Amino acid sequence: MTSNLIQRTVDAVRPASSPQLQEIIQHRLDNLTKPPGSLGRLEQLALRYGLARGVAELTLRRKSMYIFCADHGIAAEGVSAYPATVTVQMVRNFVRGGAAINVICRQFGIETAVVDMGINGPMEPGTLKCRIALGTRNWLHAPAMTAGQAVQCVEAGIKLAADAATTADVLGVGEMGIGNTTTAAALFSAFSGIDPQLTVGLGTGVTGDVLVRKAEVIRQALRQHAPSGSDPIGVLASVGGFDIGGICGFLLGAAAQRVPVVMDGFITGAAALIAQALSPNLRDYLFFSHLSAESGHARMLEFLGSQPLLSLDMRLGEGTGAALGINLIETAVRLYTEMATFSEASVSRNSE
Amino acid sequence: MTSNLIQRTVDAVRPASSPQLQEIIQHRLDNLTKPPGSLGRLEQLALRYGLARGVAELTLRRKSMYIFCADHGIAAEGVSAYPATVTVQMVRNFVRGGAAINVICRQFGIETAVVDMGINGPMEPGTLKCRIALGTRNWLHAPAMTAGQAVQCVEAGIKLAADAATTADVLGVGEMGIGNTTTAAALFSAFSGIDPQLTVGLGTGVTGDVLVRKAEVIRQALRQHAPSGSDPIGVLASVGGFDIGGICGFLLGAAAQRVPVVMDGFITGAAALIAQALSPNLRDYLFFSHLSAESGHARMLEFLGSQPLLSLDMRLGEGTGAALGINLIETAVRLYTEMATFSEASVSRNSE
Repeated sequence: MTSNLIQRTVDAVRPASSPQLQEIIQHRLDNLTKPPGSLGRLEQLALRYGLARGVAELTLRRKSMYIFCADHGIAAEGVSAYPATVTVQMVRNFVRGGAAINVICRQFGIETAVVDMGINGPMEPGTLKCRIALGTRNWLHAPAMTAGQAVQCVEAGIKLAADAATTADVLGVGEMGIGNTTTAAALFSAFSGIDPQLTVGLGTGVTGDVLVRKAEVIRQALRQHAPSGSDPIGVLASVGGFDIGGICGFLLGAAAQRVPVVMDGFITGAAALIAQALSPNLRDYLFFSHLSAESGHARMLEFLGSQPLLSLDMRLGEGTGAALGINLIETAVRLYTEMATFSEASVSRNSE
Repeated sequence: MTSNLIQRTVDAVRPASSPQLQEIIQHRLDNLTKPPGSLGRLEQLALRYGLARGVAELTLRRKSMYIFCADHGIAAEGVSAYPATVTVQMVRNFVRGGAAINVICRQFGIETAVVDMGINGPMEPGTLKCRIALGTRNWLHAPAMTAGQAVQCVEAGIKLAADAATTADVLGVGEMGIGNTTTAAALFSAFSGIDPQLTVGLGTGVTGDVLVRKAEVIRQALRQHAPSGSDPIGVLASVGGFDIGGICGFLLGAAAQRVPVVMDGFITGAAALIAQALSPNLRDYLFFSHLSAESGHARMLEFLGSQPLLSLDMRLGEGTGAALGINLIETAVRLYTEMATFSEASVSRNSE
C-alpha cells in the first residue's frame, strides 16, 4: 500500500554519509580550543547535523516544531486517564500558547505549528487543516482507517514538510491525541513482534488494571488484523492514527529535503518505525531527543538503533523533549561556528 | 583551620526544606495543563529552585557564570596533556569570548565573569583580580598552599558570591587550570579514602602511563601530608588549588544568600566536597548539571549523594555543563510560571 508521492519521497531520502565532508567537519572540531572530543555528544551532534545538511558551513537559524493532533477511536476502550475531549481542549491551549510545548518553544525561539490531522471537534482557528476524519475508528473492532486514509495522512505530512523545509534549518515533531500511547504501543508490537505487555506504559497516568486492559486490547487487535511489517502503511491503517501517519510522512518529506528532524518520545517514535520501515536511509536525518518515562520507550529506541540525548523522566509528549533536543543541536552548531581555533586564539596544542 | 568570615558564612547556610512552601509549589505544578509529574525532573527542578530561593513566585532573570582560574604546581609532574602555559592562554580566550563556555553563555543569556585566583602569568585585563599567588606549590613536595592562603582563597570566593548574589537569581561555576583534574582527584581521595587509581581520569586527554603516574603522585602526596577530612580547609591547603578554594567559598557564600549554584563537573565537584564537609546544609542549594566523561566523576557524584541532570560525555570543564544546567533550570521555572492551569485553559482533569 503506497502512492506515487510516497514512493517518490522515499526514493529521495539518500544516505547522508560522506567521508570527505565528515573529514572537513571533524578537522574543524579538532581545531577548536578544547581537547579533542571533550565536548562529547555535542561534537557528534554538530557532525551529524552537517552530514544531514550536506554542508561544512553550519547554520541553524529557523527552527520549527510541528504538533500533530488527532483523536483515536481506541480511547473508547477506556485506555486513557483523560476523556477524549481533552484532545480538542489541549489543541486550543496550544493555539493560545499556554501549554508546556509553547513555553519551551518561546524560550528557544522555535516557531510552532499545530496540525489538525483528525480531531473530533470543531475546527480550531490557528491550526493547519489536514483533517482526514473526526478521529480514527476504534481499531479493536475495525481497522483504524481505510487504505486511502492511510495514504492520505502520510501524504499530508510529506506536503507539510515540503513547505517547512523551504525555510527551516531543523524541524521538531510532537503530538497530542488522547489514546495515542495505546496506538503507538500497538504499532511497536506490530513491527517488533514484542508482546504488548512490554510495549504499553502509563501514558497520561493510567494504573494497574488499565495497563493490563491496554495490553489485552492490543493483543486482540493484532490477532484480528494481523498486520504485516512488510506493508508499513498497511500497519498504519490497521492500528495507527492520523497524527502518527502525518508524522511518518513529515519525517520522510523533511529528510528528502535534507532537513533534520528531532524526535520527541514514544508516539513520534512509533511514526519513525513506519517511516524507517519505508526508508532505512531516514535514520541519518533523525535525532532522538530523549528517553521518556513511558516504559516501552527504551525498548523502542533500542529497536530503532538510536541513542537518546536526554533522560529527564519526561512523559508529556507535545514535542517537549524534541524542543529541548533542538536547543542542544543549536548549542552544538554554535560551538562549531563560534569557538576560536587554536591558532586564532594563540593557544598551545598538546602536540606542541 | 577556618576564619570568622568562613564560620559566619557556614552558619548562615540554613536548610532549604519547608513543608508549607513545598505544598504550595507542588499544588501549582499539579494544576498546570499536563498529567501530574509528566514533566519529570523539570518539575523537581522548579520545586528545588523555589525551596532554595524560599519563595513560591519563581523568577529567574539574571544568570551568571563564574570561571575560577588558577595554576597548579603539580602540573610540573607531567600530569596533563597540555603545557601549563595553556591556563593563561585560555584565560585570554575567555576574556575575548572565543571559548566553549562563552558560546554557550551567549546562547542562554548568561553573564560571564573570569576570576584570576592565582594564574602564573601577567594579569589579564577583564578578569576579576583575586590572585593569591602565581599558582600553588607542587603538592608532591610541599603543601599546595599555606594555611593563610587556604583561608584567603575561600574568603575571596565568599566575597565574590556576596556581590554576585545581589543581582543574580542563579549562579554557575566553572574552572580552568592545567593540572586541576589531578588536584581534584587528590581531594576526592582525601575525603573519600578511595584509592587514587579509581579517582583519577583522562583530564584533558592523558593516556595509560600518565594515568598511572597521576595516581602514584596522589598516593605519595596523601601519605606525606596525611590530610584529615575533619579539617576541610586543611585538606585544601595540602593538595588543593586556588581555583577550587575560591569555588568552595563561592558555593557557601551563594547558599548563605539563598542563591542556588549550578555545578559543572569533576573539579567543581571537588570544591563541593570541601564545602559540604563544612556545611551539610549546602546540598539544598547545589544543582549538579552533568555526569562528565572524567572517570572518577560518577563515583564523586555518588559520594556527594547527587543525581546529575545530563550525561553528554563532556569533559571540558570551564562551566560548560553548568551553563547547560542553568538553561534547564530556566526551562523549569518558565514552565512553572508561564503554563496555563487546567481552569485557566478550560481543560478537563482526569478526576472529572
